[in-house]
Amino acid sequence: MQEFDAIARYFRPLARSDGAFGLGDDVARLTTSGPGAIVTVDCLVEGVHFLPGDPIDTVARKLVRVNVSDIHAKGALPKEALLVLGWPSGRLESDLQLFAAALGSDFDAWGAALIGGDTVTSPGPLFLSLTLTGESIGAGPMQRSGARPGDELWVTGEIGAGWCGLRDVRLGRESGFAEHYRVPKLPGAGGAKLVAAFGSASMDVSDGLLGDAAKLAMESGVRVEIDRDAVPMASPSDGVMEQLTGGDDYQILFTAPASVHEDLAAAAREFGVKLSRIGVISAGTGLGLMSMGHAVKLPKNLGFAHE
Amino acid sequence: MQEFDAIARYFRPLARSDGAFGLGDDVARLTTSGPGAIVTVDCLVEGVHFLPGDPIDTVARKLVRVNVSDIHAKGALPKEALLVLGWPSGRLESDLQLFAAALGSDFDAWGAALIGGDTVTSPGPLFLSLTLTGESIGAGPMQRSGARPGDELWVTGEIGAGWCGLRDVRLGRESGFAEHYRVPKLPGAGGAKLVAAFGSASMDVSDGLLGDAAKLAMESGVRVEIDRDAVPMASPSDGVMEQLTGGDDYQILFTAPASVHEDLAAAAREFGVKLSRIGVISAGTGLGLMSMGHAVKLPKNLGFAHE
Repeated sequence: MQEFDAIARYFRPLARSDGAFGLGDDVARLTTSGPGAIVTVDCLVEGVHFLPGDPIDTVARKLVRVNVSDIHAKGALPKEALLVLGWPSGRLESDLQLFAAALGSDFDAWGAALIGGDTVTSPGPLFLSLTLTGESIGAGPMQRSGARPGDELWVTGEIGAGWCGLRDVRLGRESGFAEHYRVPKLPGAGGAKLVAAFGSASMDVSDGLLGDAAKLAMESGVRVEIDRDAVPMASPSDGVMEQLTGGDDYQILFTAPASVHEDLAAAAREFGVKLSRIGVISAGTGLGLMSMGHAVKLPKNLGFAHE
Repeated sequence: MQEFDAIARYFRPLARSDGAFGLGDDVARLTTSGPGAIVTVDCLVEGVHFLPGDPIDTVARKLVRVNVSDIHAKGALPKEALLVLGWPSGRLESDLQLFAAALGSDFDAWGAALIGGDTVTSPGPLFLSLTLTGESIGAGPMQRSGARPGDELWVTGEIGAGWCGLRDVRLGRESGFAEHYRVPKLPGAGGAKLVAAFGSASMDVSDGLLGDAAKLAMESGVRVEIDRDAVPMASPSDGVMEQLTGGDDYQILFTAPASVHEDLAAAAREFGVKLSRIGVISAGTGLGLMSMGHAVKLPKNLGFAHE
């Protein structure tokens, strides 16, 4: 396949770190190390995680951001990336060039560097996977399991942009939500710093706020109670429950001791991160949703699975 | 998709290291670190790297081994793995169970441990990718670029089993070669130790001996001259040039100073690694192929690309 020369041409310039060996070797050197070194991998498939008509540069940026979101949510900063590219044989080389340029630009924006990868022909849809390492800002990564009774529950940004965006792209409607669906707007390194400095447990919101909060409750062995009225909704005119359970928000959900409330809020202002206290952690298990002081019946499906 | 509960059921038991967080978190902790820490990623696609009818347990083992081969070839031992699984929605759950069991068994055999991954539905073929870290036995990984004039060229095992195997599986013929095509037999950790102790440059032979040797020559800025008659052929009754350019051998090709010849040969015997001196390194560029003291015309395509 001719594109593979093109791959060397377009991707080698992105591999500038010493450990990448210019993509000319079988392996790369990992420079991320020590007790704070973490790694994640996320895969996007055409027709499942993005639409066949989505511009290829947005696919590159989404690939980077879904992984950066995981790293930031752990109170860490992205470092080194390995790309797997399953490229349909009929796809244009000009698309590959656009893809690589957007990938490099987004890596630069988040402080990540390409160190290796594998490129194959896909006889089916375009698929992509990115392995991303990160370095914890604190002593180690913030896990899902550290929430304790008495902690408060916080979320960055707004919830529901992902659900609204998927609806809009399906309707062929351009909007800020559609843009967010294609290229998620992340809370950024400021969010990672808040988690590292104040958090007790955290995760990114990628499969629906309610479902993700239930996972955090399970991993921490606590009960999470969310105040529905305190959740900052991306679209006040759309259904609340749809937005609370839709995927692709890529915000950070985390818990912190109530004692740091003021310092945390001040730091969020300083970092320019929109932050909302949306609930509390108590002894028990599972998830509760309240509104106006009353329990709200939970939907059957708490989250969204990209399947 | 129901299989995703099954994935938790079958893969969580493989994630036994502390850093894996039981696959219950967004990231894993990297314990491989320091100047000898390396990483590779290789992807297999149904219909490209394996045949749709290949037993699923052989697909799992091939996935592990193509990556282990890269790590061993650098004089390193495999450590931590992240799996991306693109699973066709119609494929049986019993296949998933077989896949996971074979994956775990092969990880155990090579000393690797699952620490994370991502599972998605594939609307097309089954695809799989494995990110594998390794720890160098020596101070750092053996690169492709260290060969010097005067070095000798060595290869483990036999060359051509991959080509013969692909032919046999295409003909529907069962043979030891077909088995090797599905589940490559690796030279093993002994090969990695030889490279680490004696090598000056190395790589695995996965895309055809001649093509891979030409890459090593290019990365090292030297000329590689191979003695065709010294290459141990997997099948003496089949075409030599086909076997020298076919893919999927998964042996180790490396250079070492001539001064270590005796010690290297003795260590290979001690480790039980079949090892052959197949050429020499000289000043210059490119690849030469000799037989009975005469230059042999090189084929137009030196290697095999899985495309």
